Amino acid sequence: MTESTQPAAELDRARAGDTRSLARLLSLVENESPQVRIVVKDLMQNTGTARVIGLTGAPGVGKSTVTGALVGAFRSLEDGGYRVAVLAVDPSSPFTGGALLGDRIRMQAHATDDHVFIRSMANRGQLGGLAAATPQAIRVLDAAGFDLILVETVGVGQDEVDIASLADSVIVLVAPGMGDAIQAAKAGILEVADLFVVNKADKPDSHQVVRDLRGMIALAERKEGSWKPPIVSTVAVNGARDDGIAELVTRLDAHWSWLNSTGELQRRRHARAREEITALIFAALRHRLAASNVDELAGRVADGTLNPFDAAEELIAEHVTSR
Amino acid sequence: MTESTQPAAELDRARAGDTRSLARLLSLVENESPQVRIVVKDLMQNTGTARVIGLTGAPGVGKSTVTGALVGAFRSLEDGGYRVAVLAVDPSSPFTGGALLGDRIRMQAHATDDHVFIRSMANRGQLGGLAAATPQAIRVLDAAGFDLILVETVGVGQDEVDIASLADSVIVLVAPGMGDAIQAAKAGILEVADLFVVNKADKPDSHQVVRDLRGMIALAERKEGSWKPPIVSTVAVNGARDDGIAELVTRLDAHWSWLNSTGELQRRRHARAREEITALIFAALRHRLAASNVDELAGRVADGTLNPFDAAEELIAEHVTSR
Repeated sequence: MTESTQPAAELDRARAGDTRSLARLLSLVENESPQVRIVVKDLMQNTGTARVIGLTGAPGVGKSTVTGALVGAFRSLEDGGYRVAVLAVDPSSPFTGGALLGDRIRMQAHATDDHVFIRSMANRGQLGGLAAATPQAIRVLDAAGFDLILVETVGVGQDEVDIASLADSVIVLVAPGMGDAIQAAKAGILEVADLFVVNKADKPDSHQVVRDLRGMIALAERKEGSWKPPIVSTVAVNGARDDGIAELVTRLDAHWSWLNSTGELQRRRHARAREEITALIFAALRHRLAASNVDELAGRVADGTLNPFDAAEELIAEHVTSR
Repeated sequence: MTESTQPAAELDRARAGDTRSLARLLSLVENESPQVRIVVKDLMQNTGTARVIGLTGAPGVGKSTVTGALVGAFRSLEDGGYRVAVLAVDPSSPFTGGALLGDRIRMQAHATDDHVFIRSMANRGQLGGLAAATPQAIRVLDAAGFDLILVETVGVGQDEVDIASLADSVIVLVAPGMGDAIQAAKAGILEVADLFVVNKADKPDSHQVVRDLRGMIALAERKEGSWKPPIVSTVAVNGARDDGIAELVTRLDAHWSWLNSTGELQRRRHARAREEITALIFAALRHRLAASNVDELAGRVADGTLNPFDAAEELIAEHVTSR
């Protein structure tokens, strides 16, 4: 690495607004370069100021369009607007080739705005993959001075990236015609929502979706003083309509105030750091197990001559200390 | 535990067709009873004969209905039919109360058939939860003498239960009007499919869904001799229509033959055992970390005074042996 590409120097340039430096830092993260540790150590003291909003929902509900509309809304605030970064996280697929090209194109309305940075992450790496890379990418954007980071993920509870462990506020998008809300509940997406957006609210059965969501929110057990997820109806069409987006921003701001006034923000970020550390430890253990006799033991479990508990005990005795 | 409820005796009764004994064994599994280890050790030598078929897809595509139709088809085979067990796996939710009551009701057509056993698992346990419990439940059903186990899961790549690591054959269901196939690809469900079912094929845009799927299967890189997922169109309506189900059974049988003739079955089951052992080791490590200083380290990462890599290194040095 030449002097001009030292991580600290790159970070300084990224903070000064150099998007090519920022892009290079994010490529290090995405490619799981050993340099990432150096970068993150350098930038830790500059983190913690960005507000992180996650958007998720089933395929086809319009996540990218709503994200684009939110970028526009936060950019055009009276006080000069937020510097906004968008991170589109998508496990790569042999079918799609990995890149969320369509989403990048859909957000081109902001491509010429210097205070908007858009990045897709789709690399499926080795040591923890996107689950490990995404928190580092958020940190890089945070340290680079973005006030707001919008993280768009495909679905919820994906193996690799769990939005609830990444964002301060989680928006769950639903849309009419995507199966009823009870079905959505089965997918386990309701618990993670801080806000619901019923997108495509101009479709005929959107009122029913709102009613169903309202019923389920009412049924959920909730502790005194806890947050009750609001439901916002939107009609977002690229460059044409953004009905409901202003209300969504208002509701997001209310959630942000609640997070700050109750100490919940600190609690969430603490839990997030804990999960991140745990994931790194698991990745290290997985690496060590790869060099163990786990394959021989697995063969014996597969053919029924050993049970999985005794197999695990043997490896725990060898690889996990007992103190 | 009284003598009559000893795991070995329960297992003998379950193998003889006593469904109450079988239900009690599965309750032990679901509740993560310490007895599970004893049960599994007892039954290991009787496992490995059942064929495990997984069904998954987005909410609303008709998984339970297709599962019900498959049960009927496999029960009515000329040679007397398979003994079939259905395991409906669903992470519990504060919104749904956990039980897949609707699914149980939908499959009542088979409720009076002695050779069909249906069970929902929805308990979110402590040590690994459903991800740890589901393989044990499959083992219990396998050892109890079921020839075929249909595992129905909500979505794919759920945090907790990954169908691809549980089943010999994976059916991915899609349906018209659930977002286009490119969107489905983004959800990462295509890679795990051994067979695609386009359900609700009487809907107008089902041909387009089939065309899109066909295009994506053609684009996917595939090694010489590997399995090319077929696409089966179905119209399954409880007790009324099961168009395409006979073809689905034929295709499933072809996949089963392929698994057996290529050694892929053994390879998959070996990989499955390996993941199961790894999950048990991770659960043990998580348990030990809970008693460590991970919370204090996480607090320092959250406030930016420590980076997550150094935090992880400290805990790895203490809890993971280096040899």
